Amino acid sequence: MIQLKARLALELPAINRALDKAVDTLPEPVRPVTRHIFEAGGKRLRPLLTVLTARLLGNNNEDILDLAVTLEMLHAATLLHDDVLDNAVSRRGKPAAHTLYNVSSVILAGDALLAGANALVAQRGDPRLSHCFSEATSQTAAGEILEIASQGSVDSSAAQYEEMVRGKTAWLIRAACEMGALAAGADDKTVAAAAAYGENLGMAFQMVDDALDFAPESVTGKPTGGDVREGKLTPPLRLYRDSLSQADRKDFDAAFTSLSMTGADAEAIALRIREAGFDAAVRRQADTFLDAARHALNSLPDKSERKVMFHMADYVRDRKK
Amino acid sequence: MIQLKARLALELPAINRALDKAVDTLPEPVRPVTRHIFEAGGKRLRPLLTVLTARLLGNNNEDILDLAVTLEMLHAATLLHDDVLDNAVSRRGKPAAHTLYNVSSVILAGDALLAGANALVAQRGDPRLSHCFSEATSQTAAGEILEIASQGSVDSSAAQYEEMVRGKTAWLIRAACEMGALAAGADDKTVAAAAAYGENLGMAFQMVDDALDFAPESVTGKPTGGDVREGKLTPPLRLYRDSLSQADRKDFDAAFTSLSMTGADAEAIALRIREAGFDAAVRRQADTFLDAARHALNSLPDKSERKVMFHMADYVRDRKK
Repeated sequence: MIQLKARLALELPAINRALDKAVDTLPEPVRPVTRHIFEAGGKRLRPLLTVLTARLLGNNNEDILDLAVTLEMLHAATLLHDDVLDNAVSRRGKPAAHTLYNVSSVILAGDALLAGANALVAQRGDPRLSHCFSEATSQTAAGEILEIASQGSVDSSAAQYEEMVRGKTAWLIRAACEMGALAAGADDKTVAAAAAYGENLGMAFQMVDDALDFAPESVTGKPTGGDVREGKLTPPLRLYRDSLSQADRKDFDAAFTSLSMTGADAEAIALRIREAGFDAAVRRQADTFLDAARHALNSLPDKSERKVMFHMADYVRDRKK
Repeated sequence: MIQLKARLALELPAINRALDKAVDTLPEPVRPVTRHIFEAGGKRLRPLLTVLTARLLGNNNEDILDLAVTLEMLHAATLLHDDVLDNAVSRRGKPAAHTLYNVSSVILAGDALLAGANALVAQRGDPRLSHCFSEATSQTAAGEILEIASQGSVDSSAAQYEEMVRGKTAWLIRAACEMGALAAGADDKTVAAAAAYGENLGMAFQMVDDALDFAPESVTGKPTGGDVREGKLTPPLRLYRDSLSQADRKDFDAAFTSLSMTGADAEAIALRIREAGFDAAVRRQADTFLDAARHALNSLPDKSERKVMFHMADYVRDRKK
């Protein structure tokens, strides 16, 4: 873990400088909103993954940073649009952009970020990179749309949920690794291994996130059971629902589908989920994805960057908030 | 003009089929919203321009249609986001999408359309096309952002307005022609001529649109002076404001900057603009752009498509609604 933190500390200033540079290419009126979303924090795991994969596979050019930030820009664009959609009041502990800026600016800032990122990728003149980036954009949008479409529904299957997560979360992380490999001119097999590492890491990341949603607020700093109240039938909640008697399930479904769960309802469900170990069970499912991620990594060169990428899998597994 | 209409009638069914096909590649939940925006009409001038330019320069492949619809998809994405931003109640005489679907669906449908279009372009594997498309996305977003930033302001210059229009409207039309030329494998000089035709046609299109905003509703079917009420200092309105006495201008500025103009105010201003011929003056300014568009066309091959493109310039000039 120390190695991961050290590497992040080493790369972070350059990543943030590249982000600042990218923001400066956007139309002036949207820069305050975009600076706000970047300054609100974020782990920069996506750019870090692009940089690590590119270096691991032999690309040591400094300009990899300009490519690495494009997926962080896409990520920020989705966060901006999400916050408007969710009407969220805060993001990463700071006020959500649309509470500080008007909704128009926030939607357009998202559009401008996406367009700007797209232009940065296109500038490299490599059709495989453009294809990868546009696929990431499409898959992320599709995943988000599936998520919204299934909100408050108890009818979606576990497989549908997985498909949604693959789009919403895993594709971007996959694309971060894939673009790094492509930028290093890696062969198809190596690109596929880098992509598999990223996709599985992303799947695990989201499952751990879903488990953490039921951890106490005192640990995570976020309200417990937000997913219950938003009508998201995440894996721990599905296990919980499956454990209910027919009568209790009927009551649960009524409140869940009408999005009328209270904070107290969510707290009570979270407590039960922790007691029954449903969150731990989901973390074990995430381990399966992490094993697949590690397996993919094994076929890549044994260099310091690969060690950091193994640590990243451990970080995802051990994450407490 | 008959030639233009005939050509449009000839190409339109195939363009609409290609659009339907593209919509079918989008995530299922956003298809109703996107069908709604396409079925609400639209002249399909952008796809037609791509098809015409490609054919004119020697690309007769049917698959040009799949490329041609990408800019219509981008255009539709901006319309969807615009309608949310403007809180418009109608679009092309039909209810605006967000009055029929929830705002989340509309924003995400816009995102999905943009992502899907991007993916269609990337699939062709031609970096020049990807670059052109991403530039069109960036410039359009930048233009819209400048427009919103200057709403209710009397301080922006005519040059700033022109820059905004170049982004908001002209770039997409330029890109439609440029992509057609690129898809035909044209040389740089020819691509530049196609781009110049499109850009100037687009500038003229918006200026005529700005003039038409002050035509009577009985002619256009749209409320007169909408731009006055929305705080958009378009060229006819700038001429009007410049014609006011210092005292009258102070009153105008107070109402305009506070976005408190009434429908009656807008009607009165429109009447004065028509009487003074400020709208006609702006149409004459548009003619200068149309002359530049025709000049660019002259360097392209003298084939039937070029005739239609000349007619298109006449259509933009003569448009009554």
